[in-house]
Amino acid sequence: MTGGLLAHGRLAGLDEISGVGVDAARGGFSRHVWTTAEFELREWFTARAARLGLDVETDRNGNLWAWWGAPGPDAVVTGSHLDSVPGGGAFDGPLGVVAALDAVARLQASGFRPRRPLAVVVFAEEEGSRFGVACLGSRLLSGAISGDAARALTDADGVTVAEAASAAGLAPEHLGRDDEALARIGLFIELHVEQGRGLIDLGSPVAIASSILAHGRWRLRVNGQGNHAGATGMRERRDPVVAAARAVLAVEQAALATEDARATVGRMRIVPGGTNVIASAVDAWVDARASSDAQTRALVADMEARVQEVVAGSGCTVELIEESWSGLVEFDSALAAQLVGTLGGVPLLPTGAGHDAGVLSGRVPTAMVFVRNPTGVSHSPEEFAEAEDCIAGVEALESLLRSVL
Amino acid sequence: MTGGLLAHGRLAGLDEISGVGVDAARGGFSRHVWTTAEFELREWFTARAARLGLDVETDRNGNLWAWWGAPGPDAVVTGSHLDSVPGGGAFDGPLGVVAALDAVARLQASGFRPRRPLAVVVFAEEEGSRFGVACLGSRLLSGAISGDAARALTDADGVTVAEAASAAGLAPEHLGRDDEALARIGLFIELHVEQGRGLIDLGSPVAIASSILAHGRWRLRVNGQGNHAGATGMRERRDPVVAAARAVLAVEQAALATEDARATVGRMRIVPGGTNVIASAVDAWVDARASSDAQTRALVADMEARVQEVVAGSGCTVELIEESWSGLVEFDSALAAQLVGTLGGVPLLPTGAGHDAGVLSGRVPTAMVFVRNPTGVSHSPEEFAEAEDCIAGVEALESLLRSVL
Repeated sequence: MTGGLLAHGRLAGLDEISGVGVDAARGGFSRHVWTTAEFELREWFTARAARLGLDVETDRNGNLWAWWGAPGPDAVVTGSHLDSVPGGGAFDGPLGVVAALDAVARLQASGFRPRRPLAVVVFAEEEGSRFGVACLGSRLLSGAISGDAARALTDADGVTVAEAASAAGLAPEHLGRDDEALARIGLFIELHVEQGRGLIDLGSPVAIASSILAHGRWRLRVNGQGNHAGATGMRERRDPVVAAARAVLAVEQAALATEDARATVGRMRIVPGGTNVIASAVDAWVDARASSDAQTRALVADMEARVQEVVAGSGCTVELIEESWSGLVEFDSALAAQLVGTLGGVPLLPTGAGHDAGVLSGRVPTAMVFVRNPTGVSHSPEEFAEAEDCIAGVEALESLLRSVL
Repeated sequence: MTGGLLAHGRLAGLDEISGVGVDAARGGFSRHVWTTAEFELREWFTARAARLGLDVETDRNGNLWAWWGAPGPDAVVTGSHLDSVPGGGAFDGPLGVVAALDAVARLQASGFRPRRPLAVVVFAEEEGSRFGVACLGSRLLSGAISGDAARALTDADGVTVAEAASAAGLAPEHLGRDDEALARIGLFIELHVEQGRGLIDLGSPVAIASSILAHGRWRLRVNGQGNHAGATGMRERRDPVVAAARAVLAVEQAALATEDARATVGRMRIVPGGTNVIASAVDAWVDARASSDAQTRALVADMEARVQEVVAGSGCTVELIEESWSGLVEFDSALAAQLVGTLGGVPLLPTGAGHDAGVLSGRVPTAMVFVRNPTGVSHSPEEFAEAEDCIAGVEALESLLRSVL
């Protein structure tokens, strides 16, 4: 039954891209939007879709669409993303794209004739690893971020989205809400590796998503007084690294004080960043999430108050800048119940991780399928999914597509 | 009396290089060894020395020597460095080089005929900003670091000293102790902007150095568990950024608990460094200094114990790696007393900042002249010296050279 899906015990599609964007320094993969590795993944996707007879097009926001049948309204769309966090795992994103292509291959091999158009989609910059805003491709498509706001975003080297999009062959002036592309989507189903331990505890290879925690990204800009590390006494200092260390602990305390909340500092920039230099400023990015919009806003307000207090205590100042915001997503419950039934009663599962499906859920009927991750670890080379669970995911997706097409 | 030294109220030499290595992002200057900016400074130095009739040579470790008279034993050597910390000030290093050239110009203009050879020296990678080891050029020259150890050092891009030296036109296999070059130095005098508030408090434009705090650099490698920032509950984490934040505060506490000690974290690397990623590891570099070798070792031992405790409390592990060590320097007290006398009783002043003069002091008679810094700030764009104090420094250096040549 698994046909050509497996090579060396894994999905063949995942094996085909296992040499792309390997990050020797961090481990895992670094595949950031509009870089060499990501261009290579786009070429791989286009070639693989072509082998299935799908017509591939790039929309004006850099998302890829592979069409089975003429593009048109009321289409069933499935897919995910190919970009990664720095040093990410092999499954986060690519599993959903490979599963979508494999499900189409199975439908075709069985002689199935869809009554609706189907597209396999690859959304651009889902992780926000290059330009800071997660789900950039689906946010642009749906109008959740404006073209103007997106064009001005910059990467770590100061390259703007407008410049990078232009270099990638897009017309940057056309970035933005794409009602025509959106109107074609009748239903979106995204399959994704689970990023926590939910399915381990439930003992199931797959689940249907119920909700996504509200979440966002904030930048703490801590300003102090740059000076010489050797010639400046400890009590003469206004060291923003010390203040930022206290801020990191204050962020943790705020999250611990809020039920089901998470807050993380995973990225910092020390200015100027010399070993023998007391820094003048620190940027620390906070990823914060909680189980409702109000609770997330309350978490961030509590965090800001705690951070202001400890930073001031270090003689420094701090500013909190919101870089992105995604409200709580509750997926269409009737659709979810229908899909649970199609799959014979698999569990419903909430998640703390954001997805393009979450962005689109406000505009079109949307559902997600999660595949068990036996490490419970994601955004890390240790992220994993057993081959049999991946196959179970492909089979589930095939069933779901068959039931709605 | 100040002749051609001043342009726009500053030393002309400093004005000539004020456009080189400007760091728009950080402010100040970034002039790292064997980069475009630093090559430009070497060219400027060579041309300026040539205008004084000095013969410029590069030694096998990349240090520049401009000779007045035939190179030979018992030479009086003066100079400093031209490289900077990231986003450094205009005076740290260049003031000593410009003052040396200006002092030679004054001696020549007065018809002075030295009885000993004189060289103006520019030491390479004094700040250690590119390869991590401060005073690399003078350490190599004097054998304080071996050629093998130096060749293997890498910059942030993984380029080794051997590769960078080769690209700069040196023979990397010849890096290392240079007894021939060392044997020519009869006396070394380095003029340098002060990097603290000593001369503000003493009300003097210049001082002679008495000692340099013992100091070194250590890297804390904190290992945790990489994971997804949204899908991982707060109590399931082993977050090395949280552990490193506690370590930064433990380092501060250890320094506060030791009299006259300083310890600083001015540089960190978070692996992998994504906003929505719980990191897997953090490197934090500690610059630690105290008033004796034993006290510095005790400070580091105390720091390590405190850091181990707080990191373990965060479920992470930490390793402490020594990257460089410089014992307490007490400059030749008879020589210092003689120079104080020549200058009519200027103050003697200790410093917490390391210098090439400190490295060389174990091998040759060595002295330093400090010039007042009215901000007390260094390793920052706010570092400053008034033009009249710079001139006072040049005049002092001229007097000292006249007295020993």
